[in-house]
Amino acid sequence: MSARAGIVVTGTEVLTGRVVDRNGPWLADRLRDLGVDLAHNVIVGDRPEDVRAALGWLASHGVDLIVTSGGLGPTEDDLTAAVVAEFQGRPMALDEALEARIWKVLEGLRARWPDLDEEAIRRSNRKQAMVPDGATVLEPVGTAPGLVVPPRDGSAPTVLVLPGPPRELQPMWRAAVETEAFGRAIAGRTTYRQHMLRMFGIPESEIAETLVRARDAGADLDALEITTCLRRGEVEVVTRYEPEAQAEYDRFEAVVRERHGDTLFSDDGSSVDEQVARLLRSSGRTIAVAESCTGGLLGGRLTELAGSSEYVLGGLIVYSDEAKVALAGVDARLIARVGAVSTEVAEALADGARSRLGADVGVGITGIAGPGGGTEDKPVGTVCFSVSSAEGRLTRRAVLPGGRFDVRDRSTTVALHLVRRLLLGEHDGP
Amino acid sequence: MSARAGIVVTGTEVLTGRVVDRNGPWLADRLRDLGVDLAHNVIVGDRPEDVRAALGWLASHGVDLIVTSGGLGPTEDDLTAAVVAEFQGRPMALDEALEARIWKVLEGLRARWPDLDEEAIRRSNRKQAMVPDGATVLEPVGTAPGLVVPPRDGSAPTVLVLPGPPRELQPMWRAAVETEAFGRAIAGRTTYRQHMLRMFGIPESEIAETLVRARDAGADLDALEITTCLRRGEVEVVTRYEPEAQAEYDRFEAVVRERHGDTLFSDDGSSVDEQVARLLRSSGRTIAVAESCTGGLLGGRLTELAGSSEYVLGGLIVYSDEAKVALAGVDARLIARVGAVSTEVAEALADGARSRLGADVGVGITGIAGPGGGTEDKPVGTVCFSVSSAEGRLTRRAVLPGGRFDVRDRSTTVALHLVRRLLLGEHDGP
Repeated sequence: MSARAGIVVTGTEVLTGRVVDRNGPWLADRLRDLGVDLAHNVIVGDRPEDVRAALGWLASHGVDLIVTSGGLGPTEDDLTAAVVAEFQGRPMALDEALEARIWKVLEGLRARWPDLDEEAIRRSNRKQAMVPDGATVLEPVGTAPGLVVPPRDGSAPTVLVLPGPPRELQPMWRAAVETEAFGRAIAGRTTYRQHMLRMFGIPESEIAETLVRARDAGADLDALEITTCLRRGEVEVVTRYEPEAQAEYDRFEAVVRERHGDTLFSDDGSSVDEQVARLLRSSGRTIAVAESCTGGLLGGRLTELAGSSEYVLGGLIVYSDEAKVALAGVDARLIARVGAVSTEVAEALADGARSRLGADVGVGITGIAGPGGGTEDKPVGTVCFSVSSAEGRLTRRAVLPGGRFDVRDRSTTVALHLVRRLLLGEHDGP
Repeated sequence: MSARAGIVVTGTEVLTGRVVDRNGPWLADRLRDLGVDLAHNVIVGDRPEDVRAALGWLASHGVDLIVTSGGLGPTEDDLTAAVVAEFQGRPMALDEALEARIWKVLEGLRARWPDLDEEAIRRSNRKQAMVPDGATVLEPVGTAPGLVVPPRDGSAPTVLVLPGPPRELQPMWRAAVETEAFGRAIAGRTTYRQHMLRMFGIPESEIAETLVRARDAGADLDALEITTCLRRGEVEVVTRYEPEAQAEYDRFEAVVRERHGDTLFSDDGSSVDEQVARLLRSSGRTIAVAESCTGGLLGGRLTELAGSSEYVLGGLIVYSDEAKVALAGVDARLIARVGAVSTEVAEALADGARSRLGADVGVGITGIAGPGGGTEDKPVGTVCFSVSSAEGRLTRRAVLPGGRFDVRDRSTTVALHLVRRLLLGEHDGP
């Protein structure tokens, strides 16, 4: 049995959907790295009774560790530390040395906003320096300290209290893992193995059949925890298992490779983004984009990875037809003849991006993201793509499902897959 | 008392953080629109015992309604319908008419992927047409039907079962709300009022002091549910209250206006994106961008709203210095003298975007997103902005906190606020 954990994400702004939670997923990944099994992730509002209820429920599930995020700020609705202290039966007391250390941080803040009220800052400072008796304090990255709060007796879980902002939570998690109190909480864990296979260009339902075939081929699937999902237009199959089940996993993977070899593009966890970056870097080639319906999202995605300036030169956002002509050099008569959303214009955009930026690889995207603008011939979701280099090109027309957000997001995925295949030597035509 | 609800998001891919959940936040918003109080949002893996535990916990909290998302697909790990049926004590049976309707959808899919195995598709079809006795079926948008499953006696919650893909879940939610079974579940609700105030350019801690001042001014804050949060560099204050507490809210809002009038930019829920769109549209002006460190993200954000082709002409992604010179017409000697990350280059980019695209408003962004590339003078997070029009310009240099993702994302927010202020008539200088 591995150690088990639960996550409690606090914050009415997260519960009500105004803020997307980035901490739950990140913490889930880190727990998995440690071999800790995640039972549940509960999102609760800033009401003390709701935080308490979530802690109680997870404790009743027999988890060894509860990680909370959020509710450590200076405002009155930030009450996680007090609720956890009460839950663990440990009274709160002012940690004066901590108060002084936080004050130093706040003084920096005051220099930036000289008009702030000193008395208010002192109050915030004191609130954030209140610590449950017997807790291990994690030094704040912002102004809120984290806490490792062990149970008063051995039967209850340890609670790790972390602040909400990801840039504070992440380094403080790493500090927490090093503490003795944390180590005690998750002692005696099993290590799991995990493999991810990514496919592009098949429906998720095909995987159901693959599972049946694998079972027919003698794989004991009950020894494997297999999850499949559709993400940004790709199918991901993730399998988690104990080391003893390696042979079962190998049998399963062999069936997947046999049935999906042509669409399986990643078996090492790498994303298409990382593969494109690696292929560009290793071949010393540069890339440029010309985007219409995606409006810059592909450029944004290509430059997401640190170090992308080595191979991304830039691009053209050609939202209007005038911009397609003026910036990318598309022939206005071509647009008049076949329309701005056409494979011909996508090709002209790819070539225009290459020549205008002097890049080795050019990408052109033009489509109808909706909700308006669709016709019978070219319904909403119609997107034309072309990628080109001196060696050749790949051009495609697709009708992508979903609303405006999905069509635009998925367009960037399709474009990256075309770039990948071009860099691997695939071309259209004879 | 308003009706209370809980959300159960199922899916190991969501729990383990490989997929960002978009359904929980969306459902939370919809429940609020209906005046239903959301107690908890629980994310669980694809294990039947975990889904069952989450349903049991929410039921023990006395919620009137549980909404589940996900776990209705064709693969073996999709088991929400069966678990809910068992939880509500209603046996599953094949709905043959539904099976036939789903088959029609699947036939379209087969045309797209002619190699699919027919027997496998038939099996998926049958699995998705199994329905708990007494449930109301919601017609599938994809291939998975939704379900409204009432309790066998009056004491338990009704469970609304929806599929995971947002583009299926959203229209099916709207259909669910119209059903009699759903109406019965949330009968007798209170309607809440809600106001959102958005500020840009103050730290969140300032709001703590504002709450103290409001209390001193005689506002009964206990009648208001106030939550504050920092989101993409903006501070949001959301207040929810019963209609009787209107006077208390008015008193609170007056204090906020008095203290934060200069940074309060939205009191009607509108985002800076919407305000910029409205200002451009109403003035008939067009916009173009020239982006370095953001690599197209501002263009992507400006074109997120439907209808943005009315005022977005396009832009230049000038990631390399050569692109800054060749595309935006920045003087290479200027870059050599002051560096690519400088207010002077930001101004040249804004002007270049305007002139190259023939736009009324130009935006230039250049900065160091990190993790590498920082210096003592220009640390990671240093970003220079300029927005210009025929009437004047606004130029700023900022050091933004956080990692590469945060710096790039927040840069788009700062740029939008500068555009908003320029469009409202603000300019630098004499």
